[in-house]
Amino acid sequence: MSIEALAKDIAKIIGKENVLTKDADRQSYSYDSAVLEPVIPAMVVRPTEVEQLGLLTKRFYDAGVPMTVRGAGTNLSGGTIPDSTDSVVILTNSLNKVLEINEEDLYAVVETGVVTSVLAAAAAKKNLFYPPDPGSQSISTIGGNIAENAGGLRGLKYGVTKDYVMGIEFFDAEGEFIKSGARTVKCVTGYNLAGLMVQSEGTLGIISKAILKLVPPPKASKAMMAVFDDLIKASEAVAAIIAAHVVPCTMEFLDNTTIVMVDDYTKIGLPRDAAAILLIELDGHPAQVEDETNTTIEVLKKCGATNVVLAKDQAEKMKLWEARRMALPVLARAKPTTVLEDATVPRSKIPDMMRGIESVANKYNLTIGTFGHAGDGNLHPTILCDKRDKAEFHRVEEAIDDLFDIALKLGGTLSGEHGIGTAKAQWLEKETSKGTILFSKKLRKALDPKSLLNPTKQVNMYE
Amino acid sequence: MSIEALAKDIAKIIGKENVLTKDADRQSYSYDSAVLEPVIPAMVVRPTEVEQLGLLTKRFYDAGVPMTVRGAGTNLSGGTIPDSTDSVVILTNSLNKVLEINEEDLYAVVETGVVTSVLAAAAAKKNLFYPPDPGSQSISTIGGNIAENAGGLRGLKYGVTKDYVMGIEFFDAEGEFIKSGARTVKCVTGYNLAGLMVQSEGTLGIISKAILKLVPPPKASKAMMAVFDDLIKASEAVAAIIAAHVVPCTMEFLDNTTIVMVDDYTKIGLPRDAAAILLIELDGHPAQVEDETNTTIEVLKKCGATNVVLAKDQAEKMKLWEARRMALPVLARAKPTTVLEDATVPRSKIPDMMRGIESVANKYNLTIGTFGHAGDGNLHPTILCDKRDKAEFHRVEEAIDDLFDIALKLGGTLSGEHGIGTAKAQWLEKETSKGTILFSKKLRKALDPKSLLNPTKQVNMYE
Repeated sequence: MSIEALAKDIAKIIGKENVLTKDADRQSYSYDSAVLEPVIPAMVVRPTEVEQLGLLTKRFYDAGVPMTVRGAGTNLSGGTIPDSTDSVVILTNSLNKVLEINEEDLYAVVETGVVTSVLAAAAAKKNLFYPPDPGSQSISTIGGNIAENAGGLRGLKYGVTKDYVMGIEFFDAEGEFIKSGARTVKCVTGYNLAGLMVQSEGTLGIISKAILKLVPPPKASKAMMAVFDDLIKASEAVAAIIAAHVVPCTMEFLDNTTIVMVDDYTKIGLPRDAAAILLIELDGHPAQVEDETNTTIEVLKKCGATNVVLAKDQAEKMKLWEARRMALPVLARAKPTTVLEDATVPRSKIPDMMRGIESVANKYNLTIGTFGHAGDGNLHPTILCDKRDKAEFHRVEEAIDDLFDIALKLGGTLSGEHGIGTAKAQWLEKETSKGTILFSKKLRKALDPKSLLNPTKQVNMYE
Repeated sequence: MSIEALAKDIAKIIGKENVLTKDADRQSYSYDSAVLEPVIPAMVVRPTEVEQLGLLTKRFYDAGVPMTVRGAGTNLSGGTIPDSTDSVVILTNSLNKVLEINEEDLYAVVETGVVTSVLAAAAAKKNLFYPPDPGSQSISTIGGNIAENAGGLRGLKYGVTKDYVMGIEFFDAEGEFIKSGARTVKCVTGYNLAGLMVQSEGTLGIISKAILKLVPPPKASKAMMAVFDDLIKASEAVAAIIAAHVVPCTMEFLDNTTIVMVDDYTKIGLPRDAAAILLIELDGHPAQVEDETNTTIEVLKKCGATNVVLAKDQAEKMKLWEARRMALPVLARAKPTTVLEDATVPRSKIPDMMRGIESVANKYNLTIGTFGHAGDGNLHPTILCDKRDKAEFHRVEEAIDDLFDIALKLGGTLSGEHGIGTAKAQWLEKETSKGTILFSKKLRKALDPKSLLNPTKQVNMYE
């Protein structure tokens, strides 16, 4: 079937206005937030009801068309870049209903295209809390968060998206309806397919709805900034705080490169000569927050913090978090290309990882700004470069190789929260095993015999 | 190959003393804790090193022998009953090393056969906390807990086994080594195969090691008993407490049948004329526990509790929990057969579920004692009967059917924590969909083409 005929056919299901075949439209959905080459799809479709997802999938599967599902396209590993120019992109952003917020049973039911911050706000309106907060939360969608198992600043204490998925409804490659999990806290009915769908990057099925856990919000919180004249001392403080049995809601790290660039841009008044700062927020019962604040300050000073500044009020707290939120945008302004990595190590290995990042920057003569979720060992070394400079970009690629090797040697992992996609697929076997790749391919081939669901992501089904 | 020849072959891998072929041995491993017919396996093997699991699996797979892995055999849905008299049972209880308890990074690494309470004690020794506490924790194994996604009393606040699995190593049907997850809080490297293995009931691979999350222990706790003259009032209090944003560590329910039998046996001095009691424990920061205790008492009284008794000290607290722990054993003494159910509903639906259980008991003229994890909607209606009485047992089977229908109608699930096994496989499609069963079978067939891993569990591969 020609693409024109297929477009006409699809228009009967979702309406002509939701089948996008113009150049400009197709180009808009040819890339995501990863530093990878764009691929222009043959067609872009925008279903407006979740049931249409099953019909669409079946139609595309029968026609042999590769499918890439796209929420907001904020992922950083190429998961939403089409696999080929024959691909169709399925947009979920019109499937955006918050169907239920349940205050007695502490869950939400949402359609796949609901924006993360919209769900968080809907929960907050009923005085409940949806903790996962990926950096892109103001535009990213729940379906995308689940497909990538999105993390964020609160991972340390509250966990990641995976920890909030109670149930999922989805359609498999051939459009069959699948349901896993429940509205109950406990459910062991059938395989944990909801768990399998988490971080499957659009390769095993197309998520239509999710049941997500909510929690009561913390009653109090306190934010602080700890200043260090030594990178290693700052990174040692991270594990020391946890070992003192304080689990902050957030514990973020900014190195000097990042501090100076953020301060240049925001004029917040950060300590520009600090080697590193830690931004820490504690939350919970007011008395607990007070006790933990005292313990944290004690540990920070013992670890060599030259200064600890407590946010006195909400305005000061917001200023600290603005500094953190601006880290990536200001680094990204410095050079044409920003390569944001997220190799992750057990938190006690952060000092070794910091030393490793420093030596890699020196070895390849690169500028690396490092910030990130120190509390869960999920740093984001950010390489500032220019992709058009072929020699430099070759060094960048070699540096990334080295960073992965260091992280794995330290008992860490390739990716804490950005995903594998096409960007990291080649390193997967190094961390896992040959058997793991084979197992993944067998599983996938059985569920999608024609290899049409995001075929080059996670493990490349064309190889 | 004859079973004798295979036994000789296997003895070369694990030693003659670990290949059990005598009648008495085989009979010992023919049943588990479910009310189902035993099946005597052809052979029982007990590897002593985790690497042997891969070699054994490969050998049995090549020889076409069905395999059932067994931890302590405490599961309640038939998951460890051999599928046929040709089956081999693989015992994991000699694979019992706690390999690492990490205080800075808050995790443990254990072999599959480590007993749950042994891990909890090893963590406690380093002042850390492993929360999952299935009823069988003093003998159940971590591998079994993962395979069944074991719950327990603390599910409400702390979650279930699934929420503590950071990583798994396992061998697939053909003995290939697979690795998923990491020692890091965040890991999105490859498919979430660790999540898929959770609650897979020995059908997708043989777990060898696990990385498990630990947390700092709560600093204080408080236990109380609330007495009700009305079953429904007690069950309404459950959701009301959560809606007041108090999430107890444990909130257990005992009905009058259970109260009287427990008191007869233990002479603890329970309120024998109460329609129901709630046993509640709060934990966390001391000031938080105090605040939440006050709120809880207030809500309980508002919901009609006739009395709330606070445990004054550790001894009184232990007495309350002894009452709860004795519920199943004393009910089990009353009649030859104890059918322990665990259909689960969202907690706000507990009053409706209680009404349903009552009407089912009346309809089929059965004695049902109900107790369980009210806080997470996971009640255990326990039917006291005699399996040899065919007419009665037929009514029991019809009653179970009805209980499932009621739970599903209330938005609940077939099984909160006991698993599907062979006991509930026939109801699976009712809760999920035809597509879900097909998807599960396809997935399984691809990973185990000869259908040798616990073939009749979850979805029956012989059908």
